[in-house]
Amino acid sequence: MKRWPDRRILDLFGIDLPIIQAPMAGATTVDMVVAAAEAGGLGSLPSAQLSVAGLREALGEVRALTKAPINVNFFSHVSPPADPAAQMRWRALLAPYYVESDLNPAESVAGAGRAPFDALFCEVVEEFRPEVVSFHFGLPETTLVQRVKATGAKIVSSATTVAEAVWLEANGVDAVIAMGIEAGGHRGNFLTHDMATQVGTMALVPQVVDAVSIPVIAAGGIADGRGVAAALMLGAAAVQVGTAYLFCPEARIPAVHADALASAGDDSTAITNVFTGRPARGVVNRLMRELGPLSDTVPAFPTAGGVLAPIRAKAEAASRNDFTNLWAGQAARLASRVGAAELTRNLYQAALDVLDSRKPV
Amino acid sequence: MKRWPDRRILDLFGIDLPIIQAPMAGATTVDMVVAAAEAGGLGSLPSAQLSVAGLREALGEVRALTKAPINVNFFSHVSPPADPAAQMRWRALLAPYYVESDLNPAESVAGAGRAPFDALFCEVVEEFRPEVVSFHFGLPETTLVQRVKATGAKIVSSATTVAEAVWLEANGVDAVIAMGIEAGGHRGNFLTHDMATQVGTMALVPQVVDAVSIPVIAAGGIADGRGVAAALMLGAAAVQVGTAYLFCPEARIPAVHADALASAGDDSTAITNVFTGRPARGVVNRLMRELGPLSDTVPAFPTAGGVLAPIRAKAEAASRNDFTNLWAGQAARLASRVGAAELTRNLYQAALDVLDSRKPV
Repeated sequence: MKRWPDRRILDLFGIDLPIIQAPMAGATTVDMVVAAAEAGGLGSLPSAQLSVAGLREALGEVRALTKAPINVNFFSHVSPPADPAAQMRWRALLAPYYVESDLNPAESVAGAGRAPFDALFCEVVEEFRPEVVSFHFGLPETTLVQRVKATGAKIVSSATTVAEAVWLEANGVDAVIAMGIEAGGHRGNFLTHDMATQVGTMALVPQVVDAVSIPVIAAGGIADGRGVAAALMLGAAAVQVGTAYLFCPEARIPAVHADALASAGDDSTAITNVFTGRPARGVVNRLMRELGPLSDTVPAFPTAGGVLAPIRAKAEAASRNDFTNLWAGQAARLASRVGAAELTRNLYQAALDVLDSRKPV
Repeated sequence: MKRWPDRRILDLFGIDLPIIQAPMAGATTVDMVVAAAEAGGLGSLPSAQLSVAGLREALGEVRALTKAPINVNFFSHVSPPADPAAQMRWRALLAPYYVESDLNPAESVAGAGRAPFDALFCEVVEEFRPEVVSFHFGLPETTLVQRVKATGAKIVSSATTVAEAVWLEANGVDAVIAMGIEAGGHRGNFLTHDMATQVGTMALVPQVVDAVSIPVIAAGGIADGRGVAAALMLGAAAVQVGTAYLFCPEARIPAVHADALASAGDDSTAITNVFTGRPARGVVNRLMRELGPLSDTVPAFPTAGGVLAPIRAKAEAASRNDFTNLWAGQAARLASRVGAAELTRNLYQAALDVLDSRKPV
């Protein structure tokens, strides 16, 4: 049987298929990671919503279930200084939703839980030695990057522009994810914060390929074999797929999220900051329509989410998605509804079939 | 020599190469159309900035210079009713620029010149019988579409969403252009006006392919052979390329526009409505930064441009691009600097080379 012609990422990570299951904090489970890894792709465990103990436990489970290489993903933002005034403006903006939900807008709320990579997380990396460590929002401080590198892990991060890709290469990543505007979830942007100039996958991938010498992983709008084959044409050595894995039984998402994904079309999503304080793509819902999709009143990432939790919980209990972050990319409609292992294999086989059926005659 | 495997657009239009030179009102010349057509692609003559007499003259020149099939493109917007109050708000917003340019903000200005397709333009189509007639912003009224069809012309229009593609097929187009968010110039959107939900080429093309039975032309972010090959993988039968043709000597653009294109990177552009009243992608400049990129104060398309003309002319005379619409897509950096005939052939040959070099092994 014919095989994928670009071996750079396969050799770098020690995997068989050029399919990276995207780490999706909250939604990706141990079972998803193991299924993608056992199928021959790269399973990616997200840590942003885990405690250090939680990550240790999850990694222990993954390592017990598969010998295949895995990726552990971390957010590398800097936690913002406390800004009680910004929090109060945000609470004031959300207060009418509290009132309509029969909740007290002045009740105390939990902090929002997305933890950046730090020395304690780094110890877990040193203990479990995942083959790949990926970051989102740039890279952590140099000493931590060096400690990760010392474990032998290959380091990856996302670029939303050529400038970010060049910066990542200069700062030591082994491969870069070119994340087009179609991608679901948090944008990886860290040098730019201008959403008006973010770049589509078709334009971004070849320009990143031309600007760096490390291998490029394409992400954004890829959910079937056609996208995988197209990414190869653009010069990518592999793809990262997120949204399509949200349709797998291994995904852990609220019912309102699954419902939104099931009916999402090409133009159902937008980039919004109202859920966390950083821009991310999700299915347009009430909070995005009424306060965004991009709002100047949202407090700094990741502190926006805590105040949303009570009204979100009430709405979800009533099967309403008004306040839920319905992360999704623009190609949800292309997703199949199979298990994560089958999805991983299918993406690859379908790409080969596309490559074979559309070759010059 | 191996050839492009998808013959649907080639057979429909009677052309040799699956490369459509995009009609770019103002920038596309007779020479560009003839060069693209003679090279075997589809040369496209834009009419939006021509009078009926001007179109007749240009078409006469094109027909004298090539026997190859050609495309004539029209805008199919409806001219808005006069709105003097909106015009005055727009003039007030621009008044400080007039003052700094030593111009009188109250001086009378010309109307903005982008004419929609009408019965008089239709007579020119009936006279010259171009093989392809393409529209932007949907389609004109049914009786006009039927008159165009009666000439034997194949009809094409642009879709920025699946819903627009389905509408176009239902309303009789022979092929649809799936116009991703990367594309330069005016967005073709006509059912939606929400720029936050516009779709990237990678996600849009396969979803349009799945939704219609007519052949799909991919546009947006395609400026070299990699993009052409990727479009084929996504299911497109041909591509439409605009920005890359702006680098050809046959393009007629202001020097400030050529300079902006020459230094444009992946993230140099944004979608703005401040130049014409409709959203279009161009290199970010002063007017876009200071009033946009999307403004609620801009009057209806196409009436925004007239008031800009005097300050634009003064700025351009001083080699400043502050008020010039610097239309460009997100892949300007990928463009080569060759003649339009060579560009057309190169795009095709490079695509074949990419297809050949990245086939499964």
